[in-house]
Amino acid sequence: MTMANRINRQWRLAARPDRDSGAEVDHFDFGQAPVPNIADGEALVRTLYLSLDPTQRLWMSDMDQYMAPVAVGDVMRGGTIGVVEESRADGLAVGDIVQGFWGWQDYAAVEAASLRAKLPADDDVPLVAYMGLLGAIGCTAYFGLLDIGQPKPGETVVVTAAAGAVGSVVGQIAKIKGCRVVGIAGGPEKCAWIKDTLGFDAAIDYHAEDVPTALAAACPDGIDVVFENVGGDLLDASLALVNLNARIALCGLIAQYNAAGPVPGPTMFHNILMKRVRVEGFIILDFMARFPEALAALRGWLDDGRLQYRVDVVDGLENAPQALGKLFVGANKGKLVVKVGDLATA
Amino acid sequence: MTMANRINRQWRLAARPDRDSGAEVDHFDFGQAPVPNIADGEALVRTLYLSLDPTQRLWMSDMDQYMAPVAVGDVMRGGTIGVVEESRADGLAVGDIVQGFWGWQDYAAVEAASLRAKLPADDDVPLVAYMGLLGAIGCTAYFGLLDIGQPKPGETVVVTAAAGAVGSVVGQIAKIKGCRVVGIAGGPEKCAWIKDTLGFDAAIDYHAEDVPTALAAACPDGIDVVFENVGGDLLDASLALVNLNARIALCGLIAQYNAAGPVPGPTMFHNILMKRVRVEGFIILDFMARFPEALAALRGWLDDGRLQYRVDVVDGLENAPQALGKLFVGANKGKLVVKVGDLATA
Repeated sequence: MTMANRINRQWRLAARPDRDSGAEVDHFDFGQAPVPNIADGEALVRTLYLSLDPTQRLWMSDMDQYMAPVAVGDVMRGGTIGVVEESRADGLAVGDIVQGFWGWQDYAAVEAASLRAKLPADDDVPLVAYMGLLGAIGCTAYFGLLDIGQPKPGETVVVTAAAGAVGSVVGQIAKIKGCRVVGIAGGPEKCAWIKDTLGFDAAIDYHAEDVPTALAAACPDGIDVVFENVGGDLLDASLALVNLNARIALCGLIAQYNAAGPVPGPTMFHNILMKRVRVEGFIILDFMARFPEALAALRGWLDDGRLQYRVDVVDGLENAPQALGKLFVGANKGKLVVKVGDLATA
Repeated sequence: MTMANRINRQWRLAARPDRDSGAEVDHFDFGQAPVPNIADGEALVRTLYLSLDPTQRLWMSDMDQYMAPVAVGDVMRGGTIGVVEESRADGLAVGDIVQGFWGWQDYAAVEAASLRAKLPADDDVPLVAYMGLLGAIGCTAYFGLLDIGQPKPGETVVVTAAAGAVGSVVGQIAKIKGCRVVGIAGGPEKCAWIKDTLGFDAAIDYHAEDVPTALAAACPDGIDVVFENVGGDLLDASLALVNLNARIALCGLIAQYNAAGPVPGPTMFHNILMKRVRVEGFIILDFMARFPEALAALRGWLDDGRLQYRVDVVDGLENAPQALGKLFVGANKGKLVVKVGDLATA
């Protein structure tokens, strides 16, 4: 490889999106920078995969949120898997596969302390699984459902964005725990996948069905746990059917991340009082110390054939902004990942 | 006493109120019935005091709620204190002072099992205290704040309807627990009472002040616990200022009990997610088994001079419907009670 090949392509946030804009692509600049020189204690990591997640839409905005937004002009934030190409850091060797938070770019100079994990090179699961089921996605499903939702066998669990990266895992764990699981997803393909392949008890297509009616039919004993990724009308439909002492794990409100101006809360809010419901927001960052517990359980279920996942891989860093937009129209099928580079052709 | 005196006056629900009507008085019929004859195992209780509570507005409606509404034509439901005038029940003697749920009427034939409590006749607190601080009101404040809100010393607690029966006790317990306490109430008299007499750190008059601005000024370190009696714009103002892992004890939503049609939830609902807030509705009925724990603590603080309360006594059962309306315009000062009869002139 010559130095000429070693360009560090970068997507930088160019402007904060209007609240009513879904056009993510207009808000980034694609540029080039030199590949960074590493200092003592650092390694040069070349990006293989970039994770795209709904929360990145929040980081683009200046909305009051759970961490600082990305500054305009900075490289866009994102979870990555990469390979170590040079190292002056103890414990990091050339060829190591590492996971971190090194953003929308080809190269990063990283300290060992910034690693989220070192990944096995000889594993029988593909690397992208560590961005989904065996990463923060799987942990989000695990802790959100089990710690916040606390489902008991025989209870009814409703999951929104049920064919999404998190939702599909939530539903499968709820099945493993002996619950009746109803998923809400967009379109017949997704509904067929969660019902026929993943084993959900019922799937509701919010594009084609009247959700309140369909949900009531699918939940004859009411709803005990809601794993909420979407909010808006879908949350209202669930709130109308909650049983006494139901739990609502609030994981995302993707319905309103692109909204223009203030969004009213659920009309059925009063049912939180009437039915003595617990609504609890959570962010997976709060559970990082307990990731090993979740990952061990998830890996066990995966190896036993009790969990399935799918990954939607978009090829090429240059396509990242356009790909991000897929999340907000539900165009992705499974965990959305950008393939930035090949391991072999390093 | 002759039989001619022994008329059982009764308020019956005549019609369900329109959702936008505040005119409680039009929805009741005042009638007379014979004083009931008691059967074996029953006692005849003559009502001394009737408790008026915001939740009675819900019972009048057919809104989906936490218990069955009062049927049209039935005697209106309500908590009462009365005196036993005749008894064929073990453990109930003529002259006993008893507390129960015997409705808006002069007399009831009751079984011993329907008693909530037998009250001391020779206590140094007035009987009406058992409808407020030393009854369900005090228990609501105690469990809602301590069990649901879980305040820690130094945290900031916000209470709405802060001069009301429940709110005024919540604020005082929060002070006992070492919190900074901010109360929101209507009018200068109420604000002066909670601040100067009860020792709240700050009081906000929602009639006169811009609540979001005043609340931000009164909560320089944000809000850790909200004890919510009102809902609507007041809840939104609190949600805008919640700290990470704040708790919202949802006790009432009086702002919307008289609303016409659906009411949107709080616009700041997304902060439940961003700030990982726990919102939990509760109804004091769920805590009845633990009332002795709360009542012992409340009585101890009362005897130590650390708790104060006030009772707004309206004279005459005939005035009950009109008095109920006071709750929804904030015209009552302290726990609202109707004096139905005298103990002495029985």
